[in-house]
Amino acid sequence: MVRQAIGAFPAVPSPDSVRARPGGRTARIRTQVLDAVGAVLTEQGFDALSIDAVAARSGVHRATVYRRWRDVGGLLADVVDAAGDLPWQPRDTGSLHGDLTALNAEIQDSMTETPSIALALIAVSFRSEEAARALRRLWDDRYTQSEVIVERAIRRGDLPPEVDARALLIAATAPLYHQLVLLRTPPDPALADRAARTAALAAAAGAFSGGSAH
Amino acid sequence: MVRQAIGAFPAVPSPDSVRARPGGRTARIRTQVLDAVGAVLTEQGFDALSIDAVAARSGVHRATVYRRWRDVGGLLADVVDAAGDLPWQPRDTGSLHGDLTALNAEIQDSMTETPSIALALIAVSFRSEEAARALRRLWDDRYTQSEVIVERAIRRGDLPPEVDARALLIAATAPLYHQLVLLRTPPDPALADRAARTAALAAAAGAFSGGSAH
Repeated sequence: MVRQAIGAFPAVPSPDSVRARPGGRTARIRTQVLDAVGAVLTEQGFDALSIDAVAARSGVHRATVYRRWRDVGGLLADVVDAAGDLPWQPRDTGSLHGDLTALNAEIQDSMTETPSIALALIAVSFRSEEAARALRRLWDDRYTQSEVIVERAIRRGDLPPEVDARALLIAATAPLYHQLVLLRTPPDPALADRAARTAALAAAAGAFSGGSAH
Repeated sequence: MVRQAIGAFPAVPSPDSVRARPGGRTARIRTQVLDAVGAVLTEQGFDALSIDAVAARSGVHRATVYRRWRDVGGLLADVVDAAGDLPWQPRDTGSLHGDLTALNAEIQDSMTETPSIALALIAVSFRSEEAARALRRLWDDRYTQSEVIVERAIRRGDLPPEVDARALLIAATAPLYHQLVLLRTPPDPALADRAARTAALAAAAGAFSGGSAH
């Protein structure tokens, strides 16, 4: 059985959280189908993914899957969109460094769990334009939701008000993606904290304020 | 015709630079074959790539291609390895911020040129373990070669001697990869400079020195 854990950034819906939500047969069918997409993707890979394979795996009738999701791109986009529908907010630890470290720890967990649906979705985003678009939408949402981290730091007086929140958040999280997705360096327990600390120190030194940030 | 430009990080060999090197028929055949791999990959994509397609495109006999490169993984790995064989060194601009900006500008150019062989190779690294390994080796080499940027800054007295050069270089370059490869944000002319400035400010503030960098 596939373990489908929550990787919040990008979040992947846990079956439990989806099942706990209200919704009748339609919601149940969606859960079954999206679980099956994740299972086929992480166990067999993109090439094995088809309407037929997902129907067989989910126990949902082929015509139903076809009518609602149309093709593999539609299935993948809905896996990502379902993650975006889940309530999520960044942790409030009381400091910019702490908040960014917690955010990075979530990213690291979602990339290093086995199997990692997040990593599988990133890989398929190079093959399915629909999956790529859905993933970019989800990242955009998550970065927007994470801007509260910067707003809190500004309210505490730790950062100047004109700081470019998005640039700061990308600087804080990019080393995680670069090392875990592209460089595939062995998991480094210090990485989440170090990348967060780097961005917080740069922010305090004015890296994301004023002219050069635009 | 495909324009095959040098993208130095990861570097992709320009046909001219390879042709200018000494070497007889064997070197010429390698150039023809690797050019053909790049052309098929960027024009038609990974699914079109095969020993037969590369043989037809390059005008080199199928048996020769098969004997020397064996399969698509071998061809892709050699495209990356050929890039690693080229002489490359980071520019010396006289400042840490300037050196990192120049490095980032090279990365940005290699990712945004059309077609981008670098981007195509990153995409296929999710499908070919041989290509992924070759790309990781190339990145490892390039980051090692780039450590001289940090050494120069230490010699100038701009950074303390115990700075973690690799962590600094990854922090400086990661936002480029994250935005251009994963987030696919529109090209931002300020990005190379801003990411360089962020890493330089963080380094000056001690982000890559001492205990927390390890």
